[in-house]
Amino acid sequence: MYNDDHFMSIALRLAKRGLGNVSPNPTVGCVIVQDDVIISRGGTQAGGRPHAEVIALERAGNLAHNSTMYITLEPCCHHGNTAPCTAAIIASSIKKVVVATCDPDSRVSGKGIEALLKAGIEVKCDVMKKEAEELNAGFFCSKKLFRPFITLKMAMSFDGKIATSIGKSKWITSSLTRKWVHKVRAEHDAIMIGGNTLEIDDPMLDCRLPSLEEQSPMRIIIDGKARLKSEHQIAKTASKIKTVVITDHEPKERIKHIDYLIADNYKTSLKEVMQELTTKFGITRLLVEGGGILFTELLRQKLADRIICCRAGKILGNEALPAIGNLNIVDMSQCYALKKVESFNFSDDIIEIWDTKTTTFL
Amino acid sequence: MYNDDHFMSIALRLAKRGLGNVSPNPTVGCVIVQDDVIISRGGTQAGGRPHAEVIALERAGNLAHNSTMYITLEPCCHHGNTAPCTAAIIASSIKKVVVATCDPDSRVSGKGIEALLKAGIEVKCDVMKKEAEELNAGFFCSKKLFRPFITLKMAMSFDGKIATSIGKSKWITSSLTRKWVHKVRAEHDAIMIGGNTLEIDDPMLDCRLPSLEEQSPMRIIIDGKARLKSEHQIAKTASKIKTVVITDHEPKERIKHIDYLIADNYKTSLKEVMQELTTKFGITRLLVEGGGILFTELLRQKLADRIICCRAGKILGNEALPAIGNLNIVDMSQCYALKKVESFNFSDDIIEIWDTKTTTFL
Repeated sequence: MYNDDHFMSIALRLAKRGLGNVSPNPTVGCVIVQDDVIISRGGTQAGGRPHAEVIALERAGNLAHNSTMYITLEPCCHHGNTAPCTAAIIASSIKKVVVATCDPDSRVSGKGIEALLKAGIEVKCDVMKKEAEELNAGFFCSKKLFRPFITLKMAMSFDGKIATSIGKSKWITSSLTRKWVHKVRAEHDAIMIGGNTLEIDDPMLDCRLPSLEEQSPMRIIIDGKARLKSEHQIAKTASKIKTVVITDHEPKERIKHIDYLIADNYKTSLKEVMQELTTKFGITRLLVEGGGILFTELLRQKLADRIICCRAGKILGNEALPAIGNLNIVDMSQCYALKKVESFNFSDDIIEIWDTKTTTFL
Repeated sequence: MYNDDHFMSIALRLAKRGLGNVSPNPTVGCVIVQDDVIISRGGTQAGGRPHAEVIALERAGNLAHNSTMYITLEPCCHHGNTAPCTAAIIASSIKKVVVATCDPDSRVSGKGIEALLKAGIEVKCDVMKKEAEELNAGFFCSKKLFRPFITLKMAMSFDGKIATSIGKSKWITSSLTRKWVHKVRAEHDAIMIGGNTLEIDDPMLDCRLPSLEEQSPMRIIIDGKARLKSEHQIAKTASKIKTVVITDHEPKERIKHIDYLIADNYKTSLKEVMQELTTKFGITRLLVEGGGILFTELLRQKLADRIICCRAGKILGNEALPAIGNLNIVDMSQCYALKKVESFNFSDDIIEIWDTKTTTFL
């Protein structure tokens, strides 16, 4: 006999596939089990519809009768674009539903489970709750803090630098690590850089992994000087990949295919800018790729939720550009404490994932 | 049937126990195998004598007849303080000897193997050679470069700092990591710090793990200002643990129990100073524990062979004290490239081991 964690972890893996592809919706995984055997599976599709439960139920057909359904998130019970999943589950005469975590959306939040119970379905909650909330950190963040879950991605030298004193950074990490970063990009709704990084690196910021090219997330340049020019790689590819420039004034000239977000408060409140990214563009997972000034400001304003540090065995010396700027720390007690999520060897580099403990809901 | 690597790896583990306890000698492990069963084992004893082979042969007695011996280093064939191991092996009528690597000592270097072959013993060489030379890196370094194998040990924040702007560093890493460092100390022949670290931290630099207290290595303070005072922790414990101050002038007052090494060239040639540590004190494995100035100078002078970085999830900001100072690097091609040996999670921290590729013999 397999236990609930076994089936839920499979459902979580199905859900993981939707990351970066479903915003502003959550990504959900669902498996239907009959006599310890998985008879059907489903995951949230691109754009957030159809829902995982509906796909799994359709595939199961009559076999769903008397079975157990594992879902990574409470099923919806409100009539939105489609009929609620609870209705489909009840109609399929599922016997038992195992749910990882409740939906933070106020339109659902417990009501989905209530509807199942009322229909006489046995419900078990909080199976792998932590893992499920962690997976949908972006969605939870957007519902609870009204802003995206923000991850800083740094390619860092052994001594904490992101470029030499004259801004050279090609390449700190190995080519395999840089490819891995493209996969990470595909799992996000948007990538953000600051104006200096635009000027120095002139990056493309797309996902260039075979078969994942279409999953390049939106690109956002936050730059008070609005330095994006039509010669930049980003501008050249803006007809294909949605691109937004956030600045505090109307630029002299608007570049074709670029959206402009004029936020005169962005220097004082990055939080409000971030919230606008969620309300206006539905961004739930934001990957910030540099540079040091933006990293530092996000840390200072408690807007960095996670750090992915790709750490290379290269020493650049103290005159090189730091990943993190000044923080006015004198005593050890004032330091920014990180919680280790994971660390693993990857080609010549080490990949570290740290949480900043800003998101208390996780 | 077990293969040669199986038995040699056991011999290597026996050898590992001697690290920090046998200088200026190598540490060797030996197992004697009869019909795929280990019938006897031995490792180099404290101070370097008796040798591993002699211990294993004594324990085996007559059972050694017709057996196979695995040794991590070529057996000695010269009459030193004791009779040569080759004579003992031949006398025991061992059938076959498997050797990991040749002894770099010019008095042996191939002659040990030759003696065995001449006596009609079958010899197989280079089994786990790399691992064996890596284990005895200190001994190999002392014989080939006439200086110790030098390891920098850093407790580093996420952003590459070793203390706040006013020198506070208690504590960057977790208490478990700091205990692990005491084990690392015990595996070295000496620990070195610079004068600033002495002044700011006033460390004890001993091994305070239960049952390993007696294995505290020699302590060395390298300091042009010869700032060690009788009030310092190190001076207070100098009657128990050998302590050396390296400086470039005769200090105003010599402190009791402290050895002074007056090296007027130390600022220009740390290499000569390091060589003196090997010739004068038999140091083969040196652990350098700070601070940033000493780390940087050793890197610059290609005298840092390995870096053990205990990396903590704490951000201290760019005004904090860097682990590595200026290196005049402009282009990425000028960076100091490290080779990853190992990286693993340890309590809240990450422990990284990097090689600097200075020691081409490894």
